[in-house]
Amino acid sequence: MKNSSDNKVVDLFKHTNTSAKVLNISDSFEMKRGGHLSNVNVAYEAWGSLNSDKSNVIVIFTGLSASSHVTSSPSDQAPGWWETMVGDGKAIDTSKYYVICINTLGSCFGSTSPVSINEQTNQPYRLTFPELTVEDMANASQLLLDKIGIKRIHLLIGPSLGGMKAIAFSILHNSIVDNLILISTATQALPYAIALRSLQREVIRKDPLWNNGFYSYENPPLNGVRIARKIGMTSYRSANEWTQRFGRKKSVDNKLNQNTFGIENTSFEFEIESYLEHQAVKFQNIFDANCYLYLSRAMDWFDASNLGKSSLDAFSKININKALVLAVDTDTLFPPQQQKEIAENLSLSNTKVEYKELSCVQGHDSFLVDTVSFSKEIENFIKSL
Amino acid sequence: MKNSSDNKVVDLFKHTNTSAKVLNISDSFEMKRGGHLSNVNVAYEAWGSLNSDKSNVIVIFTGLSASSHVTSSPSDQAPGWWETMVGDGKAIDTSKYYVICINTLGSCFGSTSPVSINEQTNQPYRLTFPELTVEDMANASQLLLDKIGIKRIHLLIGPSLGGMKAIAFSILHNSIVDNLILISTATQALPYAIALRSLQREVIRKDPLWNNGFYSYENPPLNGVRIARKIGMTSYRSANEWTQRFGRKKSVDNKLNQNTFGIENTSFEFEIESYLEHQAVKFQNIFDANCYLYLSRAMDWFDASNLGKSSLDAFSKININKALVLAVDTDTLFPPQQQKEIAENLSLSNTKVEYKELSCVQGHDSFLVDTVSFSKEIENFIKSL
Repeated sequence: MKNSSDNKVVDLFKHTNTSAKVLNISDSFEMKRGGHLSNVNVAYEAWGSLNSDKSNVIVIFTGLSASSHVTSSPSDQAPGWWETMVGDGKAIDTSKYYVICINTLGSCFGSTSPVSINEQTNQPYRLTFPELTVEDMANASQLLLDKIGIKRIHLLIGPSLGGMKAIAFSILHNSIVDNLILISTATQALPYAIALRSLQREVIRKDPLWNNGFYSYENPPLNGVRIARKIGMTSYRSANEWTQRFGRKKSVDNKLNQNTFGIENTSFEFEIESYLEHQAVKFQNIFDANCYLYLSRAMDWFDASNLGKSSLDAFSKININKALVLAVDTDTLFPPQQQKEIAENLSLSNTKVEYKELSCVQGHDSFLVDTVSFSKEIENFIKSL
Repeated sequence: MKNSSDNKVVDLFKHTNTSAKVLNISDSFEMKRGGHLSNVNVAYEAWGSLNSDKSNVIVIFTGLSASSHVTSSPSDQAPGWWETMVGDGKAIDTSKYYVICINTLGSCFGSTSPVSINEQTNQPYRLTFPELTVEDMANASQLLLDKIGIKRIHLLIGPSLGGMKAIAFSILHNSIVDNLILISTATQALPYAIALRSLQREVIRKDPLWNNGFYSYENPPLNGVRIARKIGMTSYRSANEWTQRFGRKKSVDNKLNQNTFGIENTSFEFEIESYLEHQAVKFQNIFDANCYLYLSRAMDWFDASNLGKSSLDAFSKININKALVLAVDTDTLFPPQQQKEIAENLSLSNTKVEYKELSCVQGHDSFLVDTVSFSKEIENFIKSL
């Protein structure tokens, strides 16, 4: 960690992976929608060894809520969010590639964000943080890579929000990326996804503890963040997965079986309810409410066609060799139609594109869960490069 | 209205259709999960004329949020919730049939519910209202029909929750129903639907104004009810409908374009957001929060298989001539698979069943919106009887 401000942020979010490196990437970082940030930090982790001609770099951009801890390492043995995908001998093979995972600008896991200290006020930015876009996240990632001497990326991989960042990065920094894997992502947010995110933000804002962003970090708006997470979760998996997994089973968790009021004699009577509660409680304790608002709205705003005169014009700026676009048949948040659009846009701009629609029951989150199916596709693609 | 208690309830909910008749159906009504209600009222409306042998009765059970005002009438010319479906010369033809629509027990539109006055305390029931089930709603409807002299129903129609009630009614009161139309409904609630409803209830309960059910009727938990309604709406239509209808259009509603906080410089910047807000504000002003909690949980609890030794055993008690089961291909809340299950259960119990999966973009709500497609199917079925 670079300075006391960083340490203060880390203190607020104890979950921040201890092995992440944090680098200052800019003294004055211009934001796309106006305003700027001074002394911008970006957190990242790296695995494997950079070869002599620096031609073995794989960069992973994360989804909305993930840290840079994509897999375990000697210095941080906690399992990463893509542990079964990234590692020695795995599909993304750290014995062959130098793998870098970058924490998003605006995320509370080490990069500069609304919980960071604004050095001009010596207070956390909170809502004085400038409006954040996917393009800002891409630009901050580019500066980080530049800072650590990476001028070319053999393969850039982005799932979900990470895919939006990867699209923006490939358009804005088109001399850097050689190959691309985009997973369950989109060229632009569509209204169903915007609606779900808008609702999540509204629930956070209506939590009285949110207090217009000026909540106490010791007593943050946990209800808002927890319920927001649950709303999100209704679109991260699939109805069929839940039917198979939970059906109408009752919850056996006694801690949750507390009377709340007459008609709901167990507040989370069904197993699906206690499952959501457990997952969302974990999340409420590690994610900052204001960061969530900023990252969520950035996804709504993203529209790659704004990076050119049209979507095709924007995509024509991409200058890569080969792309793999992976869709999941049960993904309702970033449905296969949106992956097809990406593949078509890339094809029209003379990129060699493989498009695959995987059949997985876990919906949007399949890339995190059905790593058997995903490993196969990713491994084959990497071998084909 | 029968007495001052009823009038008080109506005062609280000004939307209650003035033309509804309210009848006392029982002095002591036993509830399935325990407890009882005294002096139970059920609200209903009727159109057309009963023929001499009382063989032209069509009964409509409503969804979660509808009143008995299914269509306009001379005494209440406001359009009903199925105005294009029910009326003189329409698919459900009030010039030929005596059409009765019954307000659900537990709904705030005239039937006894958590906003009704408990005569023992002279206070609204609120959360002292006993646990409510779909079966209770069916039983109350049967008592209402008995009270008005209806011993046989030529055709019972139920969409959504109304379909659950119609299934329960046909099992529990199997000498009364001759034919059945079930629309976008289910034999039991599945976890995706339970999750969405659980979240809606949690949002209401977390609204500080909800106050454990003891809110002021002048200052009710509007935020909770409004956001709950929006969560529901994400499953009432379809993602594709919203893409076609709203895309990424920006809201032009200046009333909503108020600064809320920095990163969300218009609180409902996208048209999808202002659409949801408008619809949900309408709802928050007419629907009681406690009633919503009871009706919502009743849907989670419903499982027709509990009405027999098994689902098939329960369905074998149904004794009707013919059934039409209508599914919508884009319905994610009550998906076609659940309609097929109903049709299969009915078939195995020797009912003549027609199953149709309609292709409509409006999702679960298609029966309310695409009345051209639905009218055709319903009209043909009625003619075939």
